[in-house]
Amino acid sequence: MATRLEKDTLGTVEVPAEAYYGAQTARAAANFHISGLRPHPALVWGTLVIKKCAAKANMATGRLDEKIGAAIVQAAEESLAGKFAGHFVVDPFQAGAGTSHNMNVNEVLANRANELLGGALGAYDRVHPNDHVNMAQSTNDVFPTAMRLSALHMLFLLHQELETLCDALHAKGTEFDRILKSGRTHLQDAVPIRLGQEFEAYAAAMEKNLAGLERCRPNLCELGLGGTAVGTGLNAEARYIDLVIEEIGRETSLPVYRAANMVETTQNMDPFVTLSSALKGLAINLVRIANDLRLLSSGPRTGFNEINLPALQPGSSIMPGKVNPVMAEVTDMVAFQVIGADTTVTLAAQAGQLELNVMMPVIAFNILFSMEIIRNSVKQFTESCIKGITANETRCNSNLEASVGLATVLAPYVGYAAAAEVAKESMQSGQSIKEIIIARKILSPEKLAEILDPYPLTNPGVPGKRQ
Amino acid sequence: MATRLEKDTLGTVEVPAEAYYGAQTARAAANFHISGLRPHPALVWGTLVIKKCAAKANMATGRLDEKIGAAIVQAAEESLAGKFAGHFVVDPFQAGAGTSHNMNVNEVLANRANELLGGALGAYDRVHPNDHVNMAQSTNDVFPTAMRLSALHMLFLLHQELETLCDALHAKGTEFDRILKSGRTHLQDAVPIRLGQEFEAYAAAMEKNLAGLERCRPNLCELGLGGTAVGTGLNAEARYIDLVIEEIGRETSLPVYRAANMVETTQNMDPFVTLSSALKGLAINLVRIANDLRLLSSGPRTGFNEINLPALQPGSSIMPGKVNPVMAEVTDMVAFQVIGADTTVTLAAQAGQLELNVMMPVIAFNILFSMEIIRNSVKQFTESCIKGITANETRCNSNLEASVGLATVLAPYVGYAAAAEVAKESMQSGQSIKEIIIARKILSPEKLAEILDPYPLTNPGVPGKRQ
Amino acid sequence: MATRLEKDTLGTVEVPAEAYYGAQTARAAANFHISGLRPHPALVWGTLVIKKCAAKANMATGRLDEKIGAAIVQAAEESLAGKFAGHFVVDPFQAGAGTSHNMNVNEVLANRANELLGGALGAYDRVHPNDHVNMAQSTNDVFPTAMRLSALHMLFLLHQELETLCDALHAKGTEFDRILKSGRTHLQDAVPIRLGQEFEAYAAAMEKNLAGLERCRPNLCELGLGGTAVGTGLNAEARYIDLVIEEIGRETSLPVYRAANMVETTQNMDPFVTLSSALKGLAINLVRIANDLRLLSSGPRTGFNEINLPALQPGSSIMPGKVNPVMAEVTDMVAFQVIGADTTVTLAAQAGQLELNVMMPVIAFNILFSMEIIRNSVKQFTESCIKGITANETRCNSNLEASVGLATVLAPYVGYAAAAEVAKESMQSGQSIKEIIIARKILSPEKLAEILDPYPLTNPGVPGKRQ
Amino acid sequence: MATRLEKDTLGTVEVPAEAYYGAQTARAAANFHISGLRPHPALVWGTLVIKKCAAKANMATGRLDEKIGAAIVQAAEESLAGKFAGHFVVDPFQAGAGTSHNMNVNEVLANRANELLGGALGAYDRVHPNDHVNMAQSTNDVFPTAMRLSALHMLFLLHQELETLCDALHAKGTEFDRILKSGRTHLQDAVPIRLGQEFEAYAAAMEKNLAGLERCRPNLCELGLGGTAVGTGLNAEARYIDLVIEEIGRETSLPVYRAANMVETTQNMDPFVTLSSALKGLAINLVRIANDLRLLSSGPRTGFNEINLPALQPGSSIMPGKVNPVMAEVTDMVAFQVIGADTTVTLAAQAGQLELNVMMPVIAFNILFSMEIIRNSVKQFTESCIKGITANETRCNSNLEASVGLATVLAPYVGYAAAAEVAKESMQSGQSIKEIIIARKILSPEKLAEILDPYPLTNPGVPGKRQ
Repeated sequence: MATRLEKDTLGTVEVPAEAYYGAQTARAAANFHISGLRPHPALVWGTLVIKKCAAKANMATGRLDEKIGAAIVQAAEESLAGKFAGHFVVDPFQAGAGTSHNMNVNEVLANRANELLGGALGAYDRVHPNDHVNMAQSTNDVFPTAMRLSALHMLFLLHQELETLCDALHAKGTEFDRILKSGRTHLQDAVPIRLGQEFEAYAAAMEKNLAGLERCRPNLCELGLGGTAVGTGLNAEARYIDLVIEEIGRETSLPVYRAANMVETTQNMDPFVTLSSALKGLAINLVRIANDLRLLSSGPRTGFNEINLPALQPGSSIMPGKVNPVMAEVTDMVAFQVIGADTTVTLAAQAGQLELNVMMPVIAFNILFSMEIIRNSVKQFTESCIKGITANETRCNSNLEASVGLATVLAPYVGYAAAAEVAKESMQSGQSIKEIIIARKILSPEKLAEILDPYPLTNPGVPGKRQ
Repeated sequence: MATRLEKDTLGTVEVPAEAYYGAQTARAAANFHISGLRPHPALVWGTLVIKKCAAKANMATGRLDEKIGAAIVQAAEESLAGKFAGHFVVDPFQAGAGTSHNMNVNEVLANRANELLGGALGAYDRVHPNDHVNMAQSTNDVFPTAMRLSALHMLFLLHQELETLCDALHAKGTEFDRILKSGRTHLQDAVPIRLGQEFEAYAAAMEKNLAGLERCRPNLCELGLGGTAVGTGLNAEARYIDLVIEEIGRETSLPVYRAANMVETTQNMDPFVTLSSALKGLAINLVRIANDLRLLSSGPRTGFNEINLPALQPGSSIMPGKVNPVMAEVTDMVAFQVIGADTTVTLAAQAGQLELNVMMPVIAFNILFSMEIIRNSVKQFTESCIKGITANETRCNSNLEASVGLATVLAPYVGYAAAAEVAKESMQSGQSIKEIIIARKILSPEKLAEILDPYPLTNPGVPGKRQ
Repeated sequence: MATRLEKDTLGTVEVPAEAYYGAQTARAAANFHISGLRPHPALVWGTLVIKKCAAKANMATGRLDEKIGAAIVQAAEESLAGKFAGHFVVDPFQAGAGTSHNMNVNEVLANRANELLGGALGAYDRVHPNDHVNMAQSTNDVFPTAMRLSALHMLFLLHQELETLCDALHAKGTEFDRILKSGRTHLQDAVPIRLGQEFEAYAAAMEKNLAGLERCRPNLCELGLGGTAVGTGLNAEARYIDLVIEEIGRETSLPVYRAANMVETTQNMDPFVTLSSALKGLAINLVRIANDLRLLSSGPRTGFNEINLPALQPGSSIMPGKVNPVMAEVTDMVAFQVIGADTTVTLAAQAGQLELNVMMPVIAFNILFSMEIIRNSVKQFTESCIKGITANETRCNSNLEASVGLATVLAPYVGYAAAAEVAKESMQSGQSIKEIIIARKILSPEKLAEILDPYPLTNPGVPGKRQ
Repeated sequence: MATRLEKDTLGTVEVPAEAYYGAQTARAAANFHISGLRPHPALVWGTLVIKKCAAKANMATGRLDEKIGAAIVQAAEESLAGKFAGHFVVDPFQAGAGTSHNMNVNEVLANRANELLGGALGAYDRVHPNDHVNMAQSTNDVFPTAMRLSALHMLFLLHQELETLCDALHAKGTEFDRILKSGRTHLQDAVPIRLGQEFEAYAAAMEKNLAGLERCRPNLCELGLGGTAVGTGLNAEARYIDLVIEEIGRETSLPVYRAANMVETTQNMDPFVTLSSALKGLAINLVRIANDLRLLSSGPRTGFNEINLPALQPGSSIMPGKVNPVMAEVTDMVAFQVIGADTTVTLAAQAGQLELNVMMPVIAFNILFSMEIIRNSVKQFTESCIKGITANETRCNSNLEASVGLATVLAPYVGYAAAAEVAKESMQSGQSIKEIIIARKILSPEKLAEILDPYPLTNPGVPGKRQ
């Protein structure tokens, strides 16, 4: 591969001749052969937005030459359009605080801007990565700001998929509203419930998680850009700070605002800790719902068999005809990944020291990976699983009839202890609660019919008593 | 020990003759010899409040006889005043869903109410634990409601301590506002900062955690009481539900409200997951702050030695005169415990199945233990550490003078590359940045004095340029 | 409360007049109002053993006066016999590295030894906590050694309970060896298995966890005692080091040995990390087994209902006659606690800095609490759950007959695709696999009887083919 | 893209015309758009090895036609040589239990074998993915076996890098053996230690982690292959089982052996839990070491500055000349990732139900990703950081001289309390311990010189006393 030589403050480095990145990126590529992965596109996007807006703000304050600034803006726009996608190459596991990532973006833009102004790749004589592209910036304010922007972007996408999931759950809630079944607590027979109520409860749970994610937004919108190296704003003019935040708001349509305390935003990973927690909260409920669906569809012969999940692929390489709840299973696995990522974010966040948290790259990686996979899995879960669920009404009803939990409706009439005797007899004899009540003449047939009318049993009230 | 015999639906049980609890509590005590611990007082408080309010509501709907109801209310009030504290005995690691805890409270109140009405301990002929004390309730709505009430109570106490901590940090921010020092990023020399700015950043971080805790409150105030066994409200009259929530609001002065979907609140642990996450977020920042204080006070001779923490106790059994940052260390340890508790809560919350999460007791235990220890440690940290911190101004200033990070102020004048040369020379020769600038005549003495005036270096702006 | 005044290197402190502890313990009690808990008895035991053995070793080298040494030994023996149990009072959440705990023990022994030699409490004129009781020791070698000894002690107790559990599982394996049922994978019908095989697999799993715990023993037996403050052995004579380790081996009957590198043992928490991991591994499999039992006993009418767990207590405050799998549930909760404790241990272990890990107290607390509760719950799980399990053979057999997984035995005869057609028809029509094979005349009745003979289907081999 | 139509038991599927995979892989590719990642090469390798060995074993028992078997073996060998690398396409987040991955491999080999025998892609008329390639196998025994083989392979590679790291640490231990410095406990001045001792302790810690990893090997070598669907061995002849394990041993040179209880190996993830724990243990110590290096190299002016790490890249986009400890930082980040992965593995392992743990794919992903990144980072850490460390001996020595911890050597002569007075005076006056001893004439100059001779202070013994 043809190379060119570049010089940085530590010496001379070989760079691929065609690369738009430069010496520091090449050093980082050599230093960080860790995962073999590339930066998440949303992180590159966020960083490019900052560079473009900073150039505009620096031109507006008069500090940046208009010709250089315009070239940087154009280079950023081309990059945002995807032109240099292959040139953002630093492993997500990289130098502390994201310096390598920031310099990768600085170098690509400097080289392209330099080229636009007639210079050669690697020359930096017209546009310098540090002095011009990075003007009034430090990795220490750029990287956490890019993390915020990229997280906000992914949050928007995740939000949409979650709304679709909620709609699909509500639709099933309506569809199954008249299907009566036995509830189960401790996996044991409990009192009646409607299948639709179960799906409405899942929808309500997802809505809480959606609200939980939304509560993360304000802190993510608080940008410490302008704080530079340690949050004090050294080398960043006050007017520049206001302008660059405004530009970012305009560019992204996000309600971003200037940080109240830039020293704090430079060192405190709280917005990402909070977001990671909200993702974990979502993951927890997805596990619950997915596991319930796996239980309810268990069988077909040896399990609960109250619902059917869509058959998406043959379920076994050895057992012919087997169909597994694969979407529910992959939802679990994604959720476990997200919960594990939260552990990583926790460790990284608590490891901040003094003016900076150098562990930001691993936080960025995990937040964005989690949002990517949970968004994709929620989408598949909705489309390929939830929407296609059907109910086995006959099975649901027969479970309701047989459930020992029905003894509960007797208690207000005969007391807990006597009702327990009926339940015990049912368990021993195999007769249903109803049959025993009739056989023992505990209640008149009319009263019994009244209190065991199943639909009202699934709403508040003492059965058989006027509310 | 003298005993009496009691009968429950499974048979006969020996109960200590003087115990206000009964058969089911005795069974639970025998079944759950796990940790040897007792329930957290706040959980007992929350459960008693529910019992008292339920009795009132059941009297108001006419379902509960007034004489029985009044006796239950009195028994609950006596218990709330601490009278039967020794009779709440079930290990926090107990039967799924907290049935044993709920029955312990039901039995104590039934026995006391029975006694108030002239009955004997263990008789239940006048007041029955299930039929009267637990009327219109199930463990499955009582226990999660008690968890919410107890968490809200502890949150109030924690909130107060955190506000005091914030005040103390702000006070140090003001006290140290003129103390100039070198910032450190990656633990390496960076640009100037004021010691006061560091403490203000800590205060700002704590305020974010306080706000994060507050965001948990609304969901905790949503009570699913009235949902009974599976959230559908079987055996709970609609009017009772409204009344009991109102009563609880009156009794506790908490802005509680009726759940929108009681099936959801019965099975979804989200409010506790969210609270546990917020506690973890607080723990993360406490670790950061405690660790920074340990770094800044390291030495006295072989460390940073920029601040002094109060000496609270001799620090070593072998090294005479040693004083350790013990409050910062115990803060770390408490924080690690809280973070570990969050893992437990996560596992328990995702283990819910169908209509119920039977893992509630371990969630309750960890939430309350975490809030207890973090509240106590924050209080001690504030009083015995933060408030007594003093600064070593001379050391701070000499660090500022010596810091290689000062080369940053040169960059806007000579460019990044040339400034780096100065930094490199400083590292090799041991001369300060200032000395080299003078020696090399890079800037005039006047300009140099202007741009190295330290205080302005800690605020936004390009040094030496009019803003 | 009557008090006496004591002086330490920081000044004067009030100590309860009757307390055998002294100034530093009193300071610690005041500084660390965190959890309200006391040290685990095993940790006190381990520390006392060290003090006794150190006194003997120091007498043997001639450094410690025989009269003083003998008094310390007697004080330690009295304490080991439980005499001063109420005087070990420091909260487990305490000063970094356990200095307060070590000084608590030093002070109790010094006061008692002083008293034995005719001195008054608090005088220390005859026996000094640091100069005599702590001779040749530092908290930094005493505390990690005490942690090792206490962990080894608890490991022995846990080992016994796990062996009993394995025996109980094997007994069920034998008892249920002829009970044929359908296996389930993905909770879906799979191929035949015997109920006994399931219990044998659980026994095998527990044996692996037991072996995993045993693999932790050698590192726990490596004692860094003699390393003193930083592991270099300053103020500890070489002969003392050999002698004290030997004494501890004699005193405890544990195969302890001198550390190869005492600097390493002072700073590296690896033996506890490894032990915590092994406990977590055990917890994971306990969750699996407990959850399987909850699934298999689900019902009685609306679940799998293949086995019955012993009824230990009424299962619901509202649903009469309900019996829940409480032992399995509390096993889960204990396991989740142990897994959460592992997170805390992880955080604490990685937080070690330079010569010491000051987070040892929180590691000790979690390791010992985990071992305490898991040992107790394993014992209860074995006695109150596993041993009393009974099988519902009829239900098991009918599940086997009905299982769609039986189509698998056809595949070697007609191929995967054709067998899948049979399975599909079974699912649609509700007929059993056997009925369809007969109806479609896929195999002769003789061949069918041969290949569907159920017991051989649960062992290796192609059904109907001579092996 | 040109496609062909394939049929499986669920219907017809479009497959890319040139793909060697088939219908089920195409379904999986459509179902699992989650992470966009491909399977780890080691997992593909492990699965191919199984397929090749199974074909050989099935030919040896006479069940598999020799022509078909030979074609499968050739197809597997070509795949092992990398020929169809682009055809293993299923996302690591996929169908429970890894069915999709197993079928992907079955289909590629079937298509290639079919082609070798003159058939067309997608025909399967000569070689069938289930009936021939998967003969006597199930995903449920193949996938956990492939996980074991791939983990053993990665363990071998990691082992090598860790040995190199240990060598490098020992080399520094030797190089720095005479460099005397002050130890630090609680980050406070402690007693003398040699820089070489610190590096030897790191080497010893790494050796313990290496041994911990090795302890995982035996369980990983136990293969449940032959258990098929639920571990009972249905459709796998007893002779086949022995033969296939033997073949794998021959093919891989790994000491694999047949599982004692195949039901257990099918459902119990213990070998991976244990391996993940051992990786976490390694991660914990890497964090500790990396953080110590970051502390010791902090500065150069405002920190400890006792050692220098190699300068690998410019450390800041804004601060010229700054050099950061990037290798230590990325080591931390990788370690945090590995610790987070352990949380995921824990959740997945405890989620196993009955005969199978369907969460295996996410366990496989995390185990292999962790081993990949930790191996790569250990390699870089060794080569680019540890090997290039240099010491600042002057600084180390002056720290030793100044350390207040030196008061410890006085204690055996004057007692703890008097020594503490000296330490206190040193802290207040700024004089060194030595100066105060001389000024106060506490010891004669000769004695003082003897007991403060620094090198002996770093080995066991009471300074100034003949051992």
